[in-house]
Amino acid sequence: MLKDVLGSNVITQIGIIVKDIEKTSQAYADFFGIEKPQAFWTDAVEQAQTEYNGNSTPARAQLAFFDMGSLQLELIQPDEHPSTWREFLETHGEGVQHIAFVVEGLKDKVQIMQNGGMPLIQKGEYTGGRYAYMDTVKDLKVIVELLENDK
Amino acid sequence: MLKDVLGSNVITQIGIIVKDIEKTSQAYADFFGIEKPQAFWTDAVEQAQTEYNGNSTPARAQLAFFDMGSLQLELIQPDEHPSTWREFLETHGEGVQHIAFVVEGLKDKVQIMQNGGMPLIQKGEYTGGRYAYMDTVKDLKVIVELLENDK
Repeated sequence: MLKDVLGSNVITQIGIIVKDIEKTSQAYADFFGIEKPQAFWTDAVEQAQTEYNGNSTPARAQLAFFDMGSLQLELIQPDEHPSTWREFLETHGEGVQHIAFVVEGLKDKVQIMQNGGMPLIQKGEYTGGRYAYMDTVKDLKVIVELLENDK
Repeated sequence: MLKDVLGSNVITQIGIIVKDIEKTSQAYADFFGIEKPQAFWTDAVEQAQTEYNGNSTPARAQLAFFDMGSLQLELIQPDEHPSTWREFLETHGEGVQHIAFVVEGLKDKVQIMQNGGMPLIQKGEYTGGRYAYMDTVKDLKVIVELLENDK
């Protein structure tokens, strides 16, 4: 049994998969009376080194972030290539896909979780850090994303 | 178009529908190294005055709350009676069902949202306050729960 794996229980982000990021961003901005953020594409595979189920993938997504209290709400519109984002959209439709936690030593934590029966689904790099989506669905009923930011 | 309806954009709670609250609570407690909370039943309809899709319902649920940073993660195990909890489980399976916001003037906000095309799904009373689940799925891709606490 995995115990206190992350060294954190602070939810830093909620990720929602959407089909039309412009439309849903506008709906959030209107409903909550906040500014509509500029959506942007994740980096191409050459920079992001995106791997999904152990294989390199050209998959990208458009992202938009909203500050909603102490955490961020992230809207994610997947492209057509294989990814955890695309898979979620095809199997669940639009909705909450992940909760995210900032960790230190991401690589070690991924290893510990994999050894403990929580496989790595997808990982990649972004400017200033890296992420890993872990298959925690059986135990926690939601995907956990680990985020590690460079110091 | 509804604009800045709630007077808040602070997510106070994430609600996850589960089939076995004891098992999932234990998994959360273990994984995050935190204490397993005592699950408890929502009040019976006589106290809770639970209404689902405009009709009184005897539906109840077991709840367990975890403090995860500045917000609560709520696990919800529905009983067999008709409710938004049961409906979510039957149509989506286990997973994140709602995000919640504390509001003032819940009744008025429900009315404004209903008039604006976001129907009331379910409402009820709890000790110290009341809740309303709103059908914001078309626009926001997740159910929004309003919480109003007595002063």
